[in-house]
Amino acid sequence: MDGKVLAPVLKKALELMGPIDLKTMIAQVVQMGDEGHNRNKAGTSLLIREMAPYIVQSGFGTQDQVDVLKFMHSNDHFFLNLTMPACKCSLDPAGNIKYSTIVYTMARNGTEFGIRVSGLGDRWFTAPAEIIDGLYFPGYTMDDANPDIGDSVITETCGIGGFMMGAAPAIVQFVGGTPQDALNFTTSMYEITESDNNTYKVPPLNFRGSPTGIDIQKVIETQILPIINTGIAHKNAGVGQVGAGLVRPPMKCFEDALEAYVAMADAEGLLDD
Amino acid sequence: MDGKVLAPVLKKALELMGPIDLKTMIAQVVQMGDEGHNRNKAGTSLLIREMAPYIVQSGFGTQDQVDVLKFMHSNDHFFLNLTMPACKCSLDPAGNIKYSTIVYTMARNGTEFGIRVSGLGDRWFTAPAEIIDGLYFPGYTMDDANPDIGDSVITETCGIGGFMMGAAPAIVQFVGGTPQDALNFTTSMYEITESDNNTYKVPPLNFRGSPTGIDIQKVIETQILPIINTGIAHKNAGVGQVGAGLVRPPMKCFEDALEAYVAMADAEGLLDD
Repeated sequence: MDGKVLAPVLKKALELMGPIDLKTMIAQVVQMGDEGHNRNKAGTSLLIREMAPYIVQSGFGTQDQVDVLKFMHSNDHFFLNLTMPACKCSLDPAGNIKYSTIVYTMARNGTEFGIRVSGLGDRWFTAPAEIIDGLYFPGYTMDDANPDIGDSVITETCGIGGFMMGAAPAIVQFVGGTPQDALNFTTSMYEITESDNNTYKVPPLNFRGSPTGIDIQKVIETQILPIINTGIAHKNAGVGQVGAGLVRPPMKCFEDALEAYVAMADAEGLLDD
Repeated sequence: MDGKVLAPVLKKALELMGPIDLKTMIAQVVQMGDEGHNRNKAGTSLLIREMAPYIVQSGFGTQDQVDVLKFMHSNDHFFLNLTMPACKCSLDPAGNIKYSTIVYTMARNGTEFGIRVSGLGDRWFTAPAEIIDGLYFPGYTMDDANPDIGDSVITETCGIGGFMMGAAPAIVQFVGGTPQDALNFTTSMYEITESDNNTYKVPPLNFRGSPTGIDIQKVIETQILPIINTGIAHKNAGVGQVGAGLVRPPMKCFEDALEAYVAMADAEGLLDD
């Protein structure tokens, strides 16, 4: 497909169909075995069936329409392109709330892992990124792996991704472990989160809302780190993904954030001493 | 949509794309929260994304293509039209095997429930159909319900449908009960079936094959009847579906079949007495 086909066709189709309610769509896909980070087969499918009638009406030629439909169909991760910004939009309003200890951003750049905490503004708390424990595509090993990289951990920050693996048992065939492990990961995340998601529900937990809103106090108290499922990138640029697995952020990010929080509270005269 | 559009467009698209491997597709959808009888949201989605590029190339006009894509999109039960014949094709070769006590057909006509047993040939064992225990659409009650009706119980006969509900926790919102009930139904069906399905796997049971091949001996021994999830039809023709729920076949079908089996074995001099 010509590199200049996909965006124009999708843009025109979106103009014809109007906005997609991603929150509702994500609510559906987590009832269909997706967790929205490394399993997006249901989401990609729902997106295609929603958009297909409008792609047909886009006015582009038959071959362009076929190329777009086949391209979307060819990659079950396509919907990750939408869960990430959807989660980002959900989380941004949770930033910069005075005294809040909730994490509103997590991200990695391949060298460092960083978090931002609502009550601590735009400041990043960073530490060296970890190596991922996972399953490698044929021909690759842990020696090929770059440390944890990418912005997709915004999904876990929002209560899906690794936090939703209990709803997505089939993901263990991609990232390793058993369906019971996947459910245990979800269950353990309730220990470090503020509340149950009011939209994204975990079917095997009798539709309990997914664990949402990582609280740095709870992470430090329990010493339980957020669970992340993620792709493994090759350490050499351009090779691309070589596997997928599980990883946690460095504890140092949370320790440093809590120290900064205490220092802020102390400076404001809020602490007894 | 003109009633004469859907079939010609789909037929042309199928000619262009070639056969659909339904067994592989069903294997995927049971990893996506479908059980293939009353939950077919994933199957309908996979079918649309497979077929859409070929619908675009069908040579029919834009409006016809749009109408077909929107029609398929409008009904999450669409894929049931394919799971039923797929199951029928899987089961027919299991019929008429000498001395086999496996059920190879179950069906209901709204008045009677019937089964056929492999070693007993084409003979039907029937009894009055039961009333379904379920959830009704707004405005309808059990007084509106017809007794159990339809051929779709071929899915349960093949190890999906009610037998696969453990893989489809979200179906309880349509047929009643809890996700744990759904898992228990699947687990209990191993008591009355011959083996684990080699293609259709239950993710929460660590990808154990679904319970497949109802054995009339085991049904009588355990007194456990097959579990069926099904739509509820209105008792007046033309009204259509008014709800969905759970039902079991009458025990009499299995009792009569086992009696007939014993009589056959006796007539062939196979029984000590």
